[in-house]
Amino acid sequence: MPDAPTTTGSPDSSTGSPGSGLGDDRIRALDAHWRAANYLAAGQIYLLANPLLTEPLRPDHIKPRLLGHWGTSPGLNLVHTHLNRVIKDRDLDAICVWGPGHGGPAVLAGSWLDGSYSEIYPDVSRDAAGIARLFRQFSFPGGVPSHVAPETPGSIHEGGELGYSLAHAYGAALDNPGLLVACVIGDGEAETGPLAGSWHANKFLDPVHDGAVLPILHLNGYKIANPTVFARLPRPELDELLRGYGHEPIHVSGDEPLEVHRAMAHALDEALDRIALLQRTAREERTARQKGLAERPRWPVIVLRTPKGWTGPEVVDGLPVEGTWRAHQVPLPGVRENPEHLRQLERWLRSYRPEELFDADGRPRPHLLAEVPEGDRRLGANPHANGGLLLRSLPLPDLERYAVPVDKPGATLHEPTRVLGGLLEKVMADTGARRDFRVVGPDETASNRLEALFRTTGKAWQEAVLPTDEHLSRSGRVMEILSEHLCQGWLEGYLLTGRHGLFSCYEAFVHIVDSMVNQHIKWLKVSRSLPWRRPVASLNYLLTSHVWRQDHNGFSHQDPGFVDHVLNKSPEVVRVYLPPDANTLLSVADHILRTRDYVNVVVAGKQPCFDWLDLDQARAHCARGAGTWDWAGTENGAGEPDVVLAGAGDVPTQEVVAAAGILRRHLPDVAVRVVNVVDMTRLLPKEEHPHGMPDHEFDALFTRDRPVIFAYHGYPWLVHRLSYRRAVHPHLHVRGYKEMGTTTTPFDMVVRNDLDRYRLVMDVIDRTPGLAARAVAVRQRMQDARTRHHAWIREHGTDMPEVAEWSWTG
Amino acid sequence: MPDAPTTTGSPDSSTGSPGSGLGDDRIRALDAHWRAANYLAAGQIYLLANPLLTEPLRPDHIKPRLLGHWGTSPGLNLVHTHLNRVIKDRDLDAICVWGPGHGGPAVLAGSWLDGSYSEIYPDVSRDAAGIARLFRQFSFPGGVPSHVAPETPGSIHEGGELGYSLAHAYGAALDNPGLLVACVIGDGEAETGPLAGSWHANKFLDPVHDGAVLPILHLNGYKIANPTVFARLPRPELDELLRGYGHEPIHVSGDEPLEVHRAMAHALDEALDRIALLQRTAREERTARQKGLAERPRWPVIVLRTPKGWTGPEVVDGLPVEGTWRAHQVPLPGVRENPEHLRQLERWLRSYRPEELFDADGRPRPHLLAEVPEGDRRLGANPHANGGLLLRSLPLPDLERYAVPVDKPGATLHEPTRVLGGLLEKVMADTGARRDFRVVGPDETASNRLEALFRTTGKAWQEAVLPTDEHLSRSGRVMEILSEHLCQGWLEGYLLTGRHGLFSCYEAFVHIVDSMVNQHIKWLKVSRSLPWRRPVASLNYLLTSHVWRQDHNGFSHQDPGFVDHVLNKSPEVVRVYLPPDANTLLSVADHILRTRDYVNVVVAGKQPCFDWLDLDQARAHCARGAGTWDWAGTENGAGEPDVVLAGAGDVPTQEVVAAAGILRRHLPDVAVRVVNVVDMTRLLPKEEHPHGMPDHEFDALFTRDRPVIFAYHGYPWLVHRLSYRRAVHPHLHVRGYKEMGTTTTPFDMVVRNDLDRYRLVMDVIDRTPGLAARAVAVRQRMQDARTRHHAWIREHGTDMPEVAEWSWTG
Repeated sequence: MPDAPTTTGSPDSSTGSPGSGLGDDRIRALDAHWRAANYLAAGQIYLLANPLLTEPLRPDHIKPRLLGHWGTSPGLNLVHTHLNRVIKDRDLDAICVWGPGHGGPAVLAGSWLDGSYSEIYPDVSRDAAGIARLFRQFSFPGGVPSHVAPETPGSIHEGGELGYSLAHAYGAALDNPGLLVACVIGDGEAETGPLAGSWHANKFLDPVHDGAVLPILHLNGYKIANPTVFARLPRPELDELLRGYGHEPIHVSGDEPLEVHRAMAHALDEALDRIALLQRTAREERTARQKGLAERPRWPVIVLRTPKGWTGPEVVDGLPVEGTWRAHQVPLPGVRENPEHLRQLERWLRSYRPEELFDADGRPRPHLLAEVPEGDRRLGANPHANGGLLLRSLPLPDLERYAVPVDKPGATLHEPTRVLGGLLEKVMADTGARRDFRVVGPDETASNRLEALFRTTGKAWQEAVLPTDEHLSRSGRVMEILSEHLCQGWLEGYLLTGRHGLFSCYEAFVHIVDSMVNQHIKWLKVSRSLPWRRPVASLNYLLTSHVWRQDHNGFSHQDPGFVDHVLNKSPEVVRVYLPPDANTLLSVADHILRTRDYVNVVVAGKQPCFDWLDLDQARAHCARGAGTWDWAGTENGAGEPDVVLAGAGDVPTQEVVAAAGILRRHLPDVAVRVVNVVDMTRLLPKEEHPHGMPDHEFDALFTRDRPVIFAYHGYPWLVHRLSYRRAVHPHLHVRGYKEMGTTTTPFDMVVRNDLDRYRLVMDVIDRTPGLAARAVAVRQRMQDARTRHHAWIREHGTDMPEVAEWSWTG
Repeated sequence: MPDAPTTTGSPDSSTGSPGSGLGDDRIRALDAHWRAANYLAAGQIYLLANPLLTEPLRPDHIKPRLLGHWGTSPGLNLVHTHLNRVIKDRDLDAICVWGPGHGGPAVLAGSWLDGSYSEIYPDVSRDAAGIARLFRQFSFPGGVPSHVAPETPGSIHEGGELGYSLAHAYGAALDNPGLLVACVIGDGEAETGPLAGSWHANKFLDPVHDGAVLPILHLNGYKIANPTVFARLPRPELDELLRGYGHEPIHVSGDEPLEVHRAMAHALDEALDRIALLQRTAREERTARQKGLAERPRWPVIVLRTPKGWTGPEVVDGLPVEGTWRAHQVPLPGVRENPEHLRQLERWLRSYRPEELFDADGRPRPHLLAEVPEGDRRLGANPHANGGLLLRSLPLPDLERYAVPVDKPGATLHEPTRVLGGLLEKVMADTGARRDFRVVGPDETASNRLEALFRTTGKAWQEAVLPTDEHLSRSGRVMEILSEHLCQGWLEGYLLTGRHGLFSCYEAFVHIVDSMVNQHIKWLKVSRSLPWRRPVASLNYLLTSHVWRQDHNGFSHQDPGFVDHVLNKSPEVVRVYLPPDANTLLSVADHILRTRDYVNVVVAGKQPCFDWLDLDQARAHCARGAGTWDWAGTENGAGEPDVVLAGAGDVPTQEVVAAAGILRRHLPDVAVRVVNVVDMTRLLPKEEHPHGMPDHEFDALFTRDRPVIFAYHGYPWLVHRLSYRRAVHPHLHVRGYKEMGTTTTPFDMVVRNDLDRYRLVMDVIDRTPGLAARAVAVRQRMQDARTRHHAWIREHGTDMPEVAEWSWTG
């Protein structure tokens, strides 16, 4: 081990807590449990048969493909063993987030030992037959994944992609004042940016209304092929870092099991005593805290330093393995072919003395279960880790109170997200006692016009509050930090433990969490296939400050591609909505807040936007997901139109309606159908997405053979990718964002990307058979308007009056 | 300001450095420069005319749209002013990364004042006419962006998206031992995960071969609407944090300009003295360092605490603005309409005493330029910030030495990335003296089979080195940390300062940097349009450990969508290659390492893969980007084939060739054309991408009307999105990854996603006109093979011998 650590922890022993000075018999029981877990973890990686080593190990007992991660497993097992003890001693309501989720064998072992695994999967019984199945299924085709996964009881965290454990832990602890969330952070994961930023989540955790997070930084020294930064920090520097993060470190280190058990028991008691004291103090002083006077608690962190691959082979083929990166995955790779490896494996497995751990029927002997809690207290069975069990539907108010009146389309303007803010305020108020709804975002709730929320709650904040500050609150349920990673991680943890929420984000910068949402979608996809995992509330994105209205921030803030990213993922899970105005946004929001197990992406503007539909119309339109706006078109009701002008998104819709107005005035005999799409997945074939339109419906809406000019909010090819199988596809012409961005006016943005009303009219003229010849003058007029626009903005820096003052006049 | 900071810094004054005790006249010169920069920054936000306030301010002097960020600008100006002084005093070679890049007006002001702006943009001259243009163009249509951008002289960092400044700064400093990279980090940006993780970059910076990074943490207290976490940390906790990050903090704080100038001058001298000492010591002790004995230096960090919107309006409409979040953007929003706002603006602008700063012709008066350096030493003119000026072509060896011999296709196996490793080793060796090539990756260089690199260099590491460690080196040019953000940020900074590199990454987890690559592509797109920005080396991704061979890590590690993400971006910049074997990978690598201003994405496997082409064939194939593999097909050379079987990617190519073999054996009379695509952008229309194929070429390759069965590496709809305009598109049927992933065998992965050879043969039978009826038996045989597969893996956990032992027999 690096820089000669002490071999025991040095917690303050004056606390007299339950675990201080555990008797030798209890330490031995803990050790037996740990040995059993280590045996089961190694067995999962290696054994296809002979699971209890009742006969000498032979090559044919070994799996043909050796897969799994041994290195982190003994450390995870140690944590599991000791959490069991304190949960039982203190009757704790606790879950654990296993950051090194690649150590799947360990977490599976713990859950098999506490019996929760067999309750969920009865064929993997807590006996010899069950051990055999547990071993065989691991990382085996048709079995269970090698990592912690939705299939793993007691988990809300996959851990395959590193960086999010601590954010998930904090999300789980929010509004769960009675819950302890332990969180194992590997020293590999600790190097990631998202994890590094997550340490500051303690500035947002209210010791009164929220539970506690106990980070356990596991320094096993190496990642795949390198030492870790954290393990090689000199200890004083590491302590400064952790104190700088607002934590008080408690160290446990060593490689002699019984000493480490004693130190770990002591450290956990010390940490839990401190947490209890901090919570009690804060809850007694809550008045002072509400006034911002009480100090932010300095929560404990446990630093656990044990060798990578501890208790595994020390040396293999002459090279050191235990305590090095070589223990990361499978320390003995050649067991089936190499007799010496086979011998080493047998020696290793027998070193746990399985005959002491399991009876003749393969059942764990009672002494090793002595410190394991029961029922819902077990880490594998705590309902917080299967949040759907605890989920209650949100109280959603009647939308009538929040809708804007619309007597005729396009005559009034509202900021859609501000209208939504009214609805969210009510939801926030009506969950004031339940505390199961939060809004997260990177410092943009007010900028995104959702500040009505602050009439009923504040922004969570545990640092000093100054007189000039506004809306900060110890117990606020709006979470703002300039980290999309932390917002996403908090919300995921919050939802997976059975609550509700919304993430409001800049459209361009939600790409920062592309990879996180991938994992959440994968989690939901698998969860949906597991009957015991109850549905959780959907992860709802409100993407605003969108591409078309980043005229002041410019090119770097313009990216509509998150929709494309999400639509690559499992169709059972993903939904995308582009409400064109305030009432449709309300209707969409009302819907998504009722859904379960989805990722809903809503793109909506915060700038003033014409109101097109009243609430009833909006509801009907959103229920269909796509429909004709007869009032904007010029069809006479008989037969098919000459051309379809379709739009999706608030800005494209405005341009489409404006183009329809121009056509109505200047080419009134052209039968134009105006179509608006709210739910993008309706464009997909029915076979490809649950919301996909059947062909006959699609054909009825878009025709089979008329030109379709489609103005889309994002990258134009997405519409092609969704609709290429449709009959009308050869006639489909899509306009959208094509990376022609800069700092400019709103209308110049659409002109630069050929999405403006004049260009759309030209597209109609160019693509409607027979129209070009008789519309030469109108086309020229469009061209002139674009020329006029260019001259005007260059001169004035604003949009020309005919655009800035435009409204729909029918 | 929070928690009553001291108003001056407290650097150790015993160093007797050049700036200690600057005379009052020099302080006044610095203050004059700072006032001028503040005036110019505010003027850019507000003024359309009357730039020197030669007449009373009227509404028509004011811009119609007030855009820009004032809040951070005075702080950035302070840093710029003081960096000028130390650069000149010490003849430093220095650049600055401006993290709060939204403070564009400040950086533009600094560059206009040092004259570099006018040299690049002569119409924005350093006189009254130039000031007028500088003001008007800012955030004005057709002008310059409101943020720091490629258009900004002296910048390598956009700053619109927050989080990457420190990583960029480190990337710039690597292998530039004479360079100082100052880096302003806003306290908003400091909250992001990527920035939080970047502090540990100092564990990878070699004081001997690399330059120095001087972080300047600017605590202005607020972000858009909230206080910042860092500004509200109690100072002892902040100091612990920074020390824990391995830095020694030097504080400067206050709001009285002359005092802050003195403190800042002192702090910079202190920091630079310390840096010089640390470098000198390390360079004298280099032998000890190479042995790992010398301690890692504790580099200084400056903590600069000044009010947000400092020197701007204190109170507007009765609410405090200076020193609060309300100063973030435009502190006086109603200047054109509100006479009181107009009066306040005039008072504010005149408070800088412009008549003292500019002469009658609008030229900066000499005294305020007294501390400004000249020539290439100016921050706006340092060639490191226009890296193409310094770029040298890489020495690339003859590929013959590294290519694998291929006598006939599909008879031998090689790991393509291992073959590439040989080439990279040579490049690394041949740049040993120049030190302008680095390979970055999250702990996977060896796992990705590139370990040949370690024969010529090591992994950069400044922490303790233990006897068991391998390949660690103080001066290594492979950079490994478990942070894709840091890898990406390092490489971007390295490339933009004129060097070369490669990022090898897990395919699934490169999504972690989706948003970073967006910004880099945008940077390159704009740079390409600026003649003064010289081309830089391309950003090269090697995505390996790809979706089809994550059979052991499972679903969380399976995502081929980065290609989709990148292909949404500017076609001038993006390139995507899927070499199907070792020699094609070599040829692609040779090409991309020669290119400039691109983002090249290469997806290639690390597992044993059949060799299909010898080097000459590989070169020809890659040059075409897509072509027919006659040896695999059954065309007789006359007329068109009955069906086209196309593949892109190593695993799909193997399945395509295997399917072609089955067809050749069982349906020899069907004329099958086998097509392989290396360069995905060739599928695009010529008008959409520089590599796009003209229609006649596409039609000649894929036919216009024959069924095309396309086995693609990633999401199948990407191929449709690229080719929907082609004549053959209605006949195109694509197989690819459709999120059917888990822990299983390699062949089961392709079966689960319907990409396997048997499924492809069935597709051919089903879609080739007239074939279904006469191929019933063959189709059944394929179905049987799939059934056999399912039974076999469930029983054995491996792929059945007919698959595992398959090879192409022609």
